[in-house]
Amino acid sequence: MNSILLGLIGEGLDLSRTPAMHEAEGLAQGAPTVYRRIDTLTERASGRELKTLLDAAVSSGFNGVNVTHPYKQAVLPLLDEVSSQAAELGAVNTVVISPEGKTTGHNTDVTGFARGLEEGLPNAHMDTVVQVGAGGVGNAVAYSLVTHGVNTLKIADLDPTRAQALADVINDAVGREAVVGVDARGVEDAIATANGVVNATPMGMLAHPGTAFDVSCLTAEHWVGDVVYMPIETELLKAARARGCETLDGTRMAIHQAVDAFRLFTGLEPDVERMRKTFLSL
Amino acid sequence: MNSILLGLIGEGLDLSRTPAMHEAEGLAQGAPTVYRRIDTLTERASGRELKTLLDAAVSSGFNGVNVTHPYKQAVLPLLDEVSSQAAELGAVNTVVISPEGKTTGHNTDVTGFARGLEEGLPNAHMDTVVQVGAGGVGNAVAYSLVTHGVNTLKIADLDPTRAQALADVINDAVGREAVVGVDARGVEDAIATANGVVNATPMGMLAHPGTAFDVSCLTAEHWVGDVVYMPIETELLKAARARGCETLDGTRMAIHQAVDAFRLFTGLEPDVERMRKTFLSL
Repeated sequence: MNSILLGLIGEGLDLSRTPAMHEAEGLAQGAPTVYRRIDTLTERASGRELKTLLDAAVSSGFNGVNVTHPYKQAVLPLLDEVSSQAAELGAVNTVVISPEGKTTGHNTDVTGFARGLEEGLPNAHMDTVVQVGAGGVGNAVAYSLVTHGVNTLKIADLDPTRAQALADVINDAVGREAVVGVDARGVEDAIATANGVVNATPMGMLAHPGTAFDVSCLTAEHWVGDVVYMPIETELLKAARARGCETLDGTRMAIHQAVDAFRLFTGLEPDVERMRKTFLSL
Repeated sequence: MNSILLGLIGEGLDLSRTPAMHEAEGLAQGAPTVYRRIDTLTERASGRELKTLLDAAVSSGFNGVNVTHPYKQAVLPLLDEVSSQAAELGAVNTVVISPEGKTTGHNTDVTGFARGLEEGLPNAHMDTVVQVGAGGVGNAVAYSLVTHGVNTLKIADLDPTRAQALADVINDAVGREAVVGVDARGVEDAIATANGVVNATPMGMLAHPGTAFDVSCLTAEHWVGDVVYMPIETELLKAARARGCETLDGTRMAIHQAVDAFRLFTGLEPDVERMRKTFLSL
């Protein structure tokens, strides 16, 4: 089988588990696979514009690249084509490069979060959901929620302007008033009357201990999701389980964005359990 | 083991066997290895300057690249360092890229031809040798011959100016009058009094049938080498064997340039027989 060449363009990529997932999955399918970090905070790639790095991947024979912070929006106008989903959201995390070098953008943060939701919370009520955090992957999570069964999404951020801006983007994208921005102060009242809540802030990571809201508003009727996966059991998820909530940890999105990207990059059907195993081994 | 990413920058690379040799050897040593053709005659890489393609390899995380026609000379001023051998000859076919992105040029056409000579003709007399053809890899072959035991090298080319120009380059490089340019017309007289002769023209390839000189000048006292390896037994080598000459076919240089490059790229000791097997399987 032909070898596979992939990469990740972004800043501060040392801890990403995505390279290992792709390299292991490609090799297990019989194709020697190399996945390189193209990190603009390192000497090799610093000082290059995104356009230059993307063209470098084309001329160097890459089958595709993932794109992460701070380039997910900036990459759109550089691409030959963009999937309708990624174009609506205005963010691309996966660029497939055809044999002739044509680039097509996709967003597997969106499809990956949705797949994780279906897999991890198959029976959860989705009418009203609160999302805390409008930055980072918050846009993909919000778009994913409102296009996969959530009727009303309330997005809270410490910066209410940012919450409202994201609400506007998503409402424009889906063509209905699905999302409202709310202030993070007092979000517990919104959570109390919602079916579920998703943490899309960095709170709960080792460097950001704690929770993004007061967990005493949670009851056993709530489901609780987290995008943080280091640690897998965040303080939020631990408290939620203690209260009898169903939970969705951050590993599913992290794994499924890679699963979906591998399928797009290679045309091969990835083995989800194998990629999960690689992810968890790191 | 870490994965290995390599490439070849040049024009018209479809038939190169070098990618397969490196990918198979790396994988056999336990490192998923991808070796990409970066071919400026293809849509992916056309219209890019050599400097751009080399920087692309650096930013994209390559461990190294081979460089071939028409870039072996042009690449020199673009490199951070050049081995003394490659600098003397003024030609680089192997660029090692350090983890930090520093580039160092080498010439494994030179070392590869020399190794093939030691391996294939260990007891050949080397006092006076004729080389027919001053283009292509002719410069590496000539440099290799005069730095590995040949006292006097006569280089013949249909363009005597080109033969003399190469003679001047090599003499400058080695600091003695080791090489003289001669006219290809009448080269048979020079061969008659030499120990051996090397064909460094394309004559003998499928697209260029025939021999570069009249083989009736060969006796059993001569050894005969060829850089052509498709077919392995060229018309020249066949005629030489029929006359009782010891011969050196083009596969040894083609294999050893890759063996030596693999060692430089990876720091791993390649298995020559395994790389030869891959080469011959293609």
